[in-house]
Amino acid sequence: MSSTSDIDKLIELMAKLPGLGPRSARRAVLHMIRKRALLLAPLAESMRIVAETARECLNCGNVGTTDVCDICTSEKRANGEICVVEDVADLWAMERSGVFKGRYHVLGGTLSALDSVGPEDLRIPRLRDRVETEHITEIILALNATVDGQTTAHYIADQLEGRVRLTSLAQGVPIGGELDYLDDGTISAAMRARKNI
Amino acid sequence: MSSTSDIDKLIELMAKLPGLGPRSARRAVLHMIRKRALLLAPLAESMRIVAETARECLNCGNVGTTDVCDICTSEKRANGEICVVEDVADLWAMERSGVFKGRYHVLGGTLSALDSVGPEDLRIPRLRDRVETEHITEIILALNATVDGQTTAHYIADQLEGRVRLTSLAQGVPIGGELDYLDDGTISAAMRARKNI
Ligand SMILES: [Zn+2]
Ligand SMILES: [Zn+2]
Repeated sequence: MSSTSDIDKLIELMAKLPGLGPRSARRAVLHMIRKRALLLAPLAESMRIVAETARECLNCGNVGTTDVCDICTSEKRANGEICVVEDVADLWAMERSGVFKGRYHVLGGTLSALDSVGPEDLRIPRLRDRVETEHITEIILALNATVDGQTTAHYIADQLEGRVRLTSLAQGVPIGGELDYLDDGTISAAMRARKNI
Repeated sequence: MSSTSDIDKLIELMAKLPGLGPRSARRAVLHMIRKRALLLAPLAESMRIVAETARECLNCGNVGTTDVCDICTSEKRANGEICVVEDVADLWAMERSGVFKGRYHVLGGTLSALDSVGPEDLRIPRLRDRVETEHITEIILALNATVDGQTTAHYIADQLEGRVRLTSLAQGVPIGGELDYLDDGTISAAMRARKNI
């Protein structure tokens, strides 16, 4: 199938996306070819633009299309609070909730002795600088409730202790969560943090 | 996030692909941005090329980059056999197996009274023509083992009866298949078609 090699190449590239294997890549490519004008051509153009313009914010590590992201340049977001997250996906999740009005700091991972990820690999020095230059009063450590996430949170807390208020997200039963489906750790944490009603 | 609207638009388009929802589209876009040179830019270019060149074969309905596909133009594939499939994905699956040496006919779906899909919508008239013009001796109906697939197979068999040998794929236990995981219909079919060893 020599002249279909362009299609084969597209399938191969699509299969490299997270969550897609060869089979779902083939299905996606067939779907795109059927919707050439409505989906394939617009996707090609959208990807070209993003490939040219997307960059990491030099201040916080958020992804945007400018050297310093919209959140870091917005004076409205300068409320003295920084929410520290592992990943841009976590920042996006926080933004969708609409609950946080301050700025972010994206670590880009967690400390890991096993993978030799140290503080310098995670924008932790930059976070220390920001506490001074942006007059930060509170750092909210919104790291994942994993061993590595919590190790990283403790390391950052140690580094910043005494210079700023340090908080973390409450742990407990998710809204709509059924106890039967929760892991034991979550149930224990929720029980220990129980409140009067 | 006004200047990130290009990224938002890409996420929105990616979420329209089969098997991807908003969450996996966001993950895919972040992954592509991180691998901009290795993945995002090549994907944009590959999609642009396929959007410009991909077309359905006028003879069989296969997807390729020429008006008549490689299989239909190859004299080696003119062995008098046509394998009828519902979808290009099925044609690709047959080609990967390497077991079939003839040509294909892609119906583009199944007959369905409910969705008012008739024979004209499915390239069935074209299949009748091909039996004559391509000197076809055998039609292999490789349709899915669903109610609609089998209804369509029976309709085509009725139309072509007496003009050509009509066969269908054997039904049975898949290689490596565990009985415990198979549905009752497959087990019944395999039992009825049992062979001496
Ligand atoms: Zn920023
Ligand atoms: Zn063809």
